[in-house]
Amino acid sequence: MADIYNFSAGPAVLPHPVLVRARDELLDWQGSGMSVMEMSHRGKEFVSIAAQAEADLRELMGISSDYHVLFLQGGATSQFAMVPMNLLRDRQQADYFNTGAWSKKAIGEAKRYCTVNVAASSESTKFTTIPPRDTWKLDPSAAYVHYTPNETIGGVEFDWIPVTGEVPLVADMSSTILSRPLEVSRFGLIYAGAQKNIGPAGLTVVIVRKDLVGETLAGTPSMFDYQQHADNGSMLNTPPTYGWYLAGLVFQWLKEQGGLEAMALINQRKAGKLYAAIDASEFYQCPVDVECRSRMNVPFTLADASLDADFLAGAKAAGLLSLKGHRSVGGMRASIYNAMPEAGVAALVDFMKEFERTRG
Amino acid sequence: MADIYNFSAGPAVLPHPVLVRARDELLDWQGSGMSVMEMSHRGKEFVSIAAQAEADLRELMGISSDYHVLFLQGGATSQFAMVPMNLLRDRQQADYFNTGAWSKKAIGEAKRYCTVNVAASSESTKFTTIPPRDTWKLDPSAAYVHYTPNETIGGVEFDWIPVTGEVPLVADMSSTILSRPLEVSRFGLIYAGAQKNIGPAGLTVVIVRKDLVGETLAGTPSMFDYQQHADNGSMLNTPPTYGWYLAGLVFQWLKEQGGLEAMALINQRKAGKLYAAIDASEFYQCPVDVECRSRMNVPFTLADASLDADFLAGAKAAGLLSLKGHRSVGGMRASIYNAMPEAGVAALVDFMKEFERTRG
Repeated sequence: MADIYNFSAGPAVLPHPVLVRARDELLDWQGSGMSVMEMSHRGKEFVSIAAQAEADLRELMGISSDYHVLFLQGGATSQFAMVPMNLLRDRQQADYFNTGAWSKKAIGEAKRYCTVNVAASSESTKFTTIPPRDTWKLDPSAAYVHYTPNETIGGVEFDWIPVTGEVPLVADMSSTILSRPLEVSRFGLIYAGAQKNIGPAGLTVVIVRKDLVGETLAGTPSMFDYQQHADNGSMLNTPPTYGWYLAGLVFQWLKEQGGLEAMALINQRKAGKLYAAIDASEFYQCPVDVECRSRMNVPFTLADASLDADFLAGAKAAGLLSLKGHRSVGGMRASIYNAMPEAGVAALVDFMKEFERTRG
Repeated sequence: MADIYNFSAGPAVLPHPVLVRARDELLDWQGSGMSVMEMSHRGKEFVSIAAQAEADLRELMGISSDYHVLFLQGGATSQFAMVPMNLLRDRQQADYFNTGAWSKKAIGEAKRYCTVNVAASSESTKFTTIPPRDTWKLDPSAAYVHYTPNETIGGVEFDWIPVTGEVPLVADMSSTILSRPLEVSRFGLIYAGAQKNIGPAGLTVVIVRKDLVGETLAGTPSMFDYQQHADNGSMLNTPPTYGWYLAGLVFQWLKEQGGLEAMALINQRKAGKLYAAIDASEFYQCPVDVECRSRMNVPFTLADASLDADFLAGAKAAGLLSLKGHRSVGGMRASIYNAMPEAGVAALVDFMKEFERTRG
């Protein structure tokens, strides 16, 4: 079979060497006689896997001991409630940026727990830009400021970190975490569903400043209390052990690639090549403003939408999978996370040029 | 390497043919060019996997269309809060049976949402029995009755279903689901963490009568609302896709074994053989009353606890893993879920006899 490149927005392609290793040790992890899936989470084998994964993530991202690193369940959607339930403390209001579909979902859930001040919104542009800084209305008494550094659906990415003074900054990094170096110390809390740049679906990584947790709203389930997870080393109950193990393999692979500096360069090259092909063409368009285009999720449209189905069928025949855009945006979307090889982007660009030449 | 038998209480042994198949298709699921872990949960490949798993579970357990079958995250510990948050509705009180460590945890979490009436407790016996029916104090105005049909730690199992009249019966079946046929229609809600008899950790199955859901307590996170999950086919957000797939493989394996009637016979033979060996010996004891001994989790002690470490070391050398009892009970515990072959129990019994002969 020819090479297959999977541009799914998530769950998404995983690094091939990680999958090969997972396959090779699926029946027997390092002579233990057990699959990782079969291990007690409290046994020394899994405890060592879990600790190594946390250590590697801390090393990759430069996470200091001021932060808890938690391996949880429930995805970003659980975090949409967990963040206000834990970080509101004695406040009744939080600031949110609204830069796309995921921002909106976070806002919707937060409204069930507090007053949401939408400090800035790009909804009137159909989420194709980031609101100019001079329009932001941050409230210094807010419990926290929440934003979505990369919008998976709209393809809008912050290339910089908002300055929020003393107010803790909270980020949904599901589709951008580990794609480049990050000043973690500028954040109060970072969360990410694993299924884009970390590992398989069903694992959620939370990085939270230790001084921010320990107080929850009345009625918060124990499983939604960061402090309880931290006190139990993310083993308040049985964690998603296999996902945690795979995340650890991904972290090791990232270190082998040269860490996040190296990944940033590769990701810049990949995105640069794809956007250059789009911009050089009259046939393809990207709706997002140039200065805030995502390096992870690249939406683009064809000049003639009636060719969309042919484009997708031809792409699939060429081994280029899952390019259909989100139904709310239409057109195409190429998600090019860490695990997408440069050859995959090259193959996509070649296909796009050939499609334009013959059908455009 | 000689055969290894893993008696872990959970995460636990999985059927060998399931793991072999998972390994064989880990890199490429049925010619799709993708690992199941890499598939969009909304793509036709994964949607077919998910639907087949639900259909097979409904067939195995005889679940009627009066019930939702949900594939969630968060384990039984999340259910401890979700059950009251969804089932209390306009009531303020629920009945709970207290028959062991997991019952107690469920009660502790429920108390955060309602008045808990402990209708019966065996705590005074150190959880070695089920309270006699004539001592139960069920309240007909309770929102529901909650019990734990099999206590994983104490090794106490109900061999029958409590009668609760019009009050919906809720069961934490984490360590007994799929071990034998069940009259699902007698339950309002059944939940089970996957990591014992269903699949890998990080997946939770909920079977709930449709008329019981749709109303939640104020402040319930969206992810804790059964109705929202049901409305979205368990894809309110990205589900734990790989665990769902593996659960489906386990369901297919169970069907190949002859379904739950066949499993019940095998499980009866396995447990019968192990308890017979314990009871025939002066050296081994099981603290649990004969009529409520678990067929899934068999705790036993050695006459001389100073030999515990030697027993565990010898067992490990013989390929018999994870036999150490829970710290709250001490001694040994052999968890013999569906995936534990009869040969594993035979090997354990042989080892126990030899250990008693040489060291007892």
